[in-house]
Amino acid sequence: MADYSQLKQVQQWIGKQGMDLGYFSNFQTIQYLTGFGSDPIERVLALFVFPDADPFLFCPALEVEAVKDTGWPYGVYGYLDHENAYAMIAGQIKARTSSPAKWAIEMGNLTIERFNKMHEQFPDAMFDLDATDYIANLRVIKTPHEIELLNAAGAEADYAFEIGFKAVAAGVPEQRVAAELQYALMKRGVMNMSFDTLIQAGAHAAEPHGATGANKIENNELILFDLGTIHEGYISDASRTVALGKLSDKQADIYKVCLEAQLAAMDAAKPGITAAQLDKVARDIISKAGYGEYFIHRLGHGMGQSEHEFPSIMEGNDLVLKEGMCFSIEPGIYIPDVAGVRIEDCVHITADGCEPFTHTSKDLTYVG
Amino acid sequence: MADYSQLKQVQQWIGKQGMDLGYFSNFQTIQYLTGFGSDPIERVLALFVFPDADPFLFCPALEVEAVKDTGWPYGVYGYLDHENAYAMIAGQIKARTSSPAKWAIEMGNLTIERFNKMHEQFPDAMFDLDATDYIANLRVIKTPHEIELLNAAGAEADYAFEIGFKAVAAGVPEQRVAAELQYALMKRGVMNMSFDTLIQAGAHAAEPHGATGANKIENNELILFDLGTIHEGYISDASRTVALGKLSDKQADIYKVCLEAQLAAMDAAKPGITAAQLDKVARDIISKAGYGEYFIHRLGHGMGQSEHEFPSIMEGNDLVLKEGMCFSIEPGIYIPDVAGVRIEDCVHITADGCEPFTHTSKDLTYVG
Repeated sequence: MADYSQLKQVQQWIGKQGMDLGYFSNFQTIQYLTGFGSDPIERVLALFVFPDADPFLFCPALEVEAVKDTGWPYGVYGYLDHENAYAMIAGQIKARTSSPAKWAIEMGNLTIERFNKMHEQFPDAMFDLDATDYIANLRVIKTPHEIELLNAAGAEADYAFEIGFKAVAAGVPEQRVAAELQYALMKRGVMNMSFDTLIQAGAHAAEPHGATGANKIENNELILFDLGTIHEGYISDASRTVALGKLSDKQADIYKVCLEAQLAAMDAAKPGITAAQLDKVARDIISKAGYGEYFIHRLGHGMGQSEHEFPSIMEGNDLVLKEGMCFSIEPGIYIPDVAGVRIEDCVHITADGCEPFTHTSKDLTYVG
Repeated sequence: MADYSQLKQVQQWIGKQGMDLGYFSNFQTIQYLTGFGSDPIERVLALFVFPDADPFLFCPALEVEAVKDTGWPYGVYGYLDHENAYAMIAGQIKARTSSPAKWAIEMGNLTIERFNKMHEQFPDAMFDLDATDYIANLRVIKTPHEIELLNAAGAEADYAFEIGFKAVAAGVPEQRVAAELQYALMKRGVMNMSFDTLIQAGAHAAEPHGATGANKIENNELILFDLGTIHEGYISDASRTVALGKLSDKQADIYKVCLEAQLAAMDAAKPGITAAQLDKVARDIISKAGYGEYFIHRLGHGMGQSEHEFPSIMEGNDLVLKEGMCFSIEPGIYIPDVAGVRIEDCVHITADGCEPFTHTSKDLTYVG
């Protein structure tokens, strides 16, 4: 990161596109390009990149020292809450370019309100070029260093499963299982989950986006775990479904089918296959087994700094997978009032296949 | 919430403004108006309100049941990831109004990309009315039910302080203190903090937006706690600074001045004072004591469903405070390489003063 090679690529791209500057407002883009990671929420954090001048960062005054601590060698300017951030930004831009006329902006991130405030400062400028997809495509191929961080995050998720499986017992609330595994992680200094830990027992797991509840785990249930951590700005995200007590034929069957679909997609994930084809590999297995209507989401999502990146592994996405792409493979079968099963690894595409970031066994595991 | 009185107010406002419909995209606005709370991240969640027709919600397919579970009596439509959400929305709008020409939108939330996608469906429509401030001003006066939830969240924060103070000792990492208090909360079913718990010891606390670290607490230090929980969609947010061992005169003095500023602002907070005047009450005390340059942020922020609401208690904001407004009062003094102190309660304005949501003692407390 410290060589700012991606930032230099962005600088060249802005020049080639005939733009006078690029305005980056997504804090994850800024983290990726500068190494400084902070979500400013309603405050202003922005990166400005010019074809023929040094870039600069603009941020809340109380973040300036943290930016400098990253080794950022270019300008960084802070503002106080009562100051007009956009007027201050305009001053810095005009000091760097005599023609701030053509802008690249992140349309997928910038709100209309913030756009309007910037537009007021440069009423004659054109803001026609969207950098969203360019940045997403830059971020979609992970570097070896990024893969290393994703593997480290994956190892934290594996540890969380280990602790969590031990916490499962009849009569224990779902929330207590989440508490135990998060506490174990925090004692190791892993302070942030990448999303709310999901522990869902029995029929509760048939609500794929329900929350971890106060309800108690019972015998003869499947228990769904979906969890992930944040490791130096990179995430893990994995799901396992384990059994407590004795399973019915139906419970055992949906587990078997879901696992078959997950393993088939893991086998099929390699350079050359499209995202839609990969989704279909898993979906066909589940459909042929008669559960197609219960697999109600896409096979996977891109991931890296968040679980909301390219590529989306779904019907209709003809993107060809390439080495370095990272995404989840997470088929699920959710039968209302019966059970829910999801099995998920995030993987990176290698030269001839894929490698998962998590290694917890996917064989049907009895806990408790 | 179940009487949808705020939603009806919004419907009337849209009619009075001469709009044909309102498009609400901020998930917290949607939670406030419908009772359905869910952050869709990159997926689409939207509420459409018409002057003379029933509103409808549009959401990911897997959220439809959760919307119905809230008792929502109007239309709710789900979409799958590969479907064109905006075309589906356009169909529903055209079924409800013959003239979808004039729109109110949330410019403070809607991205340019999403705006463009909607605009494509309605190329001749006008999107000139910004609903952001109208909604923020509707949300700024909390109802008695909201105050009740904020008090419940505050009690959770008080419990967290109690546990956290007991966990402080020389040699204990900051992160371990955060782990203990969050574990205690989770065991009570409080699964979500409203922001990353901040535990900062000694000079580390002079970085007001630094993170909780692996560094160990030492004797003769001030330790800053800033934490909050989420209770049924409403948050707590409070700070306390406690002492371990023996304090230097300087440490004791900045604590004394910060507390004096906080108490003076608590006394001054009542209907009729402006946000800027209230900020000045605290700032003047800190400045007169010679620490003005070390109080580098506003006095407070509005809060309720998040810590990013109106009113902002800062220089330049001439908003007159009214009964029902909720915000933080959090003066801080951060002296690089020495110590940081912040003392914060969130309060609601009453008929003749203010009441805090947290009640942990603010007298200098020695722990360990």
